[in-house]
Amino acid sequence: AADMENESYVIQMNGNGVHHVSVNGSFCPAKLKSRIPRWNIRASEMSKRTLNPIRAIVDGMKIQPNPNKQMIALSIGDPTVFGNLPTDDEVLIAMTEAITSQKFNGYAPSIGYQSSREAVANFYSCPEALLEAKDVILTSGCSQAIELSIGVLCNPGQNILVPCPGFSLYKTLAVSMGIEVKLYNLLPEKSWEVDLKHLESLIDDKTACIIVNNPSNPCGSVFSKSHIQKILAVASRHCVPILADEIYGDMVFPGCTFHAMAPLSADVPILSCGGLAKRWLVPGWRLGWILIHDRSNAFGSEIREGLVKLTQRILGPCTVVQGALESILNKTSQEFYDSTISFLKSNSDICYNALSTVPGLTPIKPSGAMYIMVGIDMERFPEFKNDVEFTERLVTEQSVFCLPATPFEYPDYFRIVVTVPEEMMVEACNRIREFCEQHYDQQIPDLQDLECDK
Amino acid sequence: AADMENESYVIQMNGNGVHHVSVNGSFCPAKLKSRIPRWNIRASEMSKRTLNPIRAIVDGMKIQPNPNKQMIALSIGDPTVFGNLPTDDEVLIAMTEAITSQKFNGYAPSIGYQSSREAVANFYSCPEALLEAKDVILTSGCSQAIELSIGVLCNPGQNILVPCPGFSLYKTLAVSMGIEVKLYNLLPEKSWEVDLKHLESLIDDKTACIIVNNPSNPCGSVFSKSHIQKILAVASRHCVPILADEIYGDMVFPGCTFHAMAPLSADVPILSCGGLAKRWLVPGWRLGWILIHDRSNAFGSEIREGLVKLTQRILGPCTVVQGALESILNKTSQEFYDSTISFLKSNSDICYNALSTVPGLTPIKPSGAMYIMVGIDMERFPEFKNDVEFTERLVTEQSVFCLPATPFEYPDYFRIVVTVPEEMMVEACNRIREFCEQHYDQQIPDLQDLECDK
Repeated sequence: AADMENESYVIQMNGNGVHHVSVNGSFCPAKLKSRIPRWNIRASEMSKRTLNPIRAIVDGMKIQPNPNKQMIALSIGDPTVFGNLPTDDEVLIAMTEAITSQKFNGYAPSIGYQSSREAVANFYSCPEALLEAKDVILTSGCSQAIELSIGVLCNPGQNILVPCPGFSLYKTLAVSMGIEVKLYNLLPEKSWEVDLKHLESLIDDKTACIIVNNPSNPCGSVFSKSHIQKILAVASRHCVPILADEIYGDMVFPGCTFHAMAPLSADVPILSCGGLAKRWLVPGWRLGWILIHDRSNAFGSEIREGLVKLTQRILGPCTVVQGALESILNKTSQEFYDSTISFLKSNSDICYNALSTVPGLTPIKPSGAMYIMVGIDMERFPEFKNDVEFTERLVTEQSVFCLPATPFEYPDYFRIVVTVPEEMMVEACNRIREFCEQHYDQQIPDLQDLECDK
Repeated sequence: AADMENESYVIQMNGNGVHHVSVNGSFCPAKLKSRIPRWNIRASEMSKRTLNPIRAIVDGMKIQPNPNKQMIALSIGDPTVFGNLPTDDEVLIAMTEAITSQKFNGYAPSIGYQSSREAVANFYSCPEALLEAKDVILTSGCSQAIELSIGVLCNPGQNILVPCPGFSLYKTLAVSMGIEVKLYNLLPEKSWEVDLKHLESLIDDKTACIIVNNPSNPCGSVFSKSHIQKILAVASRHCVPILADEIYGDMVFPGCTFHAMAPLSADVPILSCGGLAKRWLVPGWRLGWILIHDRSNAFGSEIREGLVKLTQRILGPCTVVQGALESILNKTSQEFYDSTISFLKSNSDICYNALSTVPGLTPIKPSGAMYIMVGIDMERFPEFKNDVEFTERLVTEQSVFCLPATPFEYPDYFRIVVTVPEEMMVEACNRIREFCEQHYDQQIPDLQDLECDK
């Protein structure tokens, strides 16, 4: 074997990094004394586990609009893309002042400026759930608020309970951290209330938290006070903390009331995640927050300290937005909030009313946020295998793109974003109607025929 | 045992979550049929592993300034705190325009706007290391650039090589991810060049990357072209990629040249991390970037895709700063860069020259960035156990706070930040001189006496 070093040899590599050494043309297992280094750089397991189901599904779709019809995208959860929903002038003034003051160029504390945290605390404090600056952590958008909250509450091997249908980021983050995701059902027939029995049945010794998203993306639903109390009762019985994603808080239609979770709980510790993105219509500015509610002192100092430690990794959100935050919260006019809501409600009604009479579709009436979920009676559309194919063909034929709900773990539905200009909303609904009328199958095979097929 | 259920009992809990049940006053092990849920929320292991050594050490110090002397903090690596180093007017104009345009309220792609990435690529592209928009990823500050780079290159159980002394964030992030940190020595007697033999000796099969920080925090050192080539040769021999922390790039004193690593390498794949923080004097704005250099295609698509996936967790930096980025890079005047450098060089000279003649101190002359490392001849200061006690007493007596270098893994040194106004720098050096003269021990025990003590 020592002679081998003088033989001519070829190292062949395969994708698995396994070496076979060929000596004079015959293969034998590698017996090299020292490995000859080669570039063999693999992306980390964690990066590979960071899966974004929306991208995974949308990137795999054939999005080829009909060249004769202008594209209408009802798929993007960004209220700013069509320019019809600008933020309030006071928000822009606050930002310009923050820049020209030059007071906000330097580092802030990693959890945010004390004064900015105080402004958030004052804005959300209420007699039933008092907040002080020490209970607020500023983050780089609500996404980071959720990332840090999951990150501090859960260890690999534990599980979290996540709504179904629900925003895909919860699963993306949890799975990347090695945390198991258990889906609890929302009930479309009860305006997307939580199936409480199902929720409770999923709790075990390894359940680290329950994520509650209210108002909901993708459902546009808003929970009643009593329903939230029932969710809290489940959490309380099993001593499981709650991560409340309340980024759409206060974005509810007239006649409906938004109830934050924390004021309704006597004992359940809650991390409430929110931010400027939706209500102030500036999602790109990446200013989010975690409100720490811990009336029973169940989080204690440990969770607070853990959150502080996690913020020190990337040092908080942009200081300009932090510097403007107090004015943004205190000076934005009520008219601004009202007119946003009024627009969303009007568009939502247009969409819901139009689609309610479309054959084969069942829109679920929303009460807030900026989404409508629409059920597809797939049996009536035998040409299409599922919601992905249905929405794909809707683009090809009608140049209307709705997000299939498969990325929200809810097949046979699609999600519509209602922030587009009104005339676009109307036109999109007309095209969806035309599409459904063309593909709707009146002659649905009846159950007996189906049975015979087996 | 069944009768126990009717007995009065008390559940006592200790910090370990172990139950002892007291029945009629006598203790016995818990034999409850069903666990009675209780709040038992612990911070995650990952959050506990996210340790910031600067905070850990500074928070443990007694920082009690002398009431008769105004405090001078030479400890904070933030050039903006004293107001003497504002950013360029063009930077402020670019930001104001970005806000009033209202074009940057919505979400950007998670890796940043195409046009902003193109601007960064054009700014840093050179014939030896071409960059296009596809090679640039925008991040929430250079900290997140480093976090994502470590996150994509390394798996738990692997190791990374980190400079000693070095910026503490590398270790903070790596340890939190379960990655081992191996420290390679920088040599103060060679202006903090890398001990190449030591570096090479640390490389093993589990080495996922080498972090090179040039210009250096905390050293203020700048590597020569030939020294960088030697580091690259080590990386090339062993096929280990490089994470180049070049946040202080181009911040070098007249007569010295900054060489980025990538143009000097024929084959080593490099993730170069940078941002607006230091050169444009806006660290709070959290706009950083990763430049992907991969001439030998060793990263391939996998590392690029991994980075994209990781950015989707929190969706990139503030869009206002992204929107201003092209103007910031292209319109900032050369005079601005020059006057910053000229100020840092002047203050650095003042500090170096003053401390060079202070008994018991050995400042190491810097060539860039904004720091000076100063060695303490601890034998000459027998009153103090170490650099932490030395700097603590310097505050108590002289109200001058320098960061002990223990958080940089380099005891018996302290770090001075040279961004303070000139008169403060002069005054601080005078006080340090007074302090050292008062505590310097002429009568150093000779070696034989020390031997006798054993």
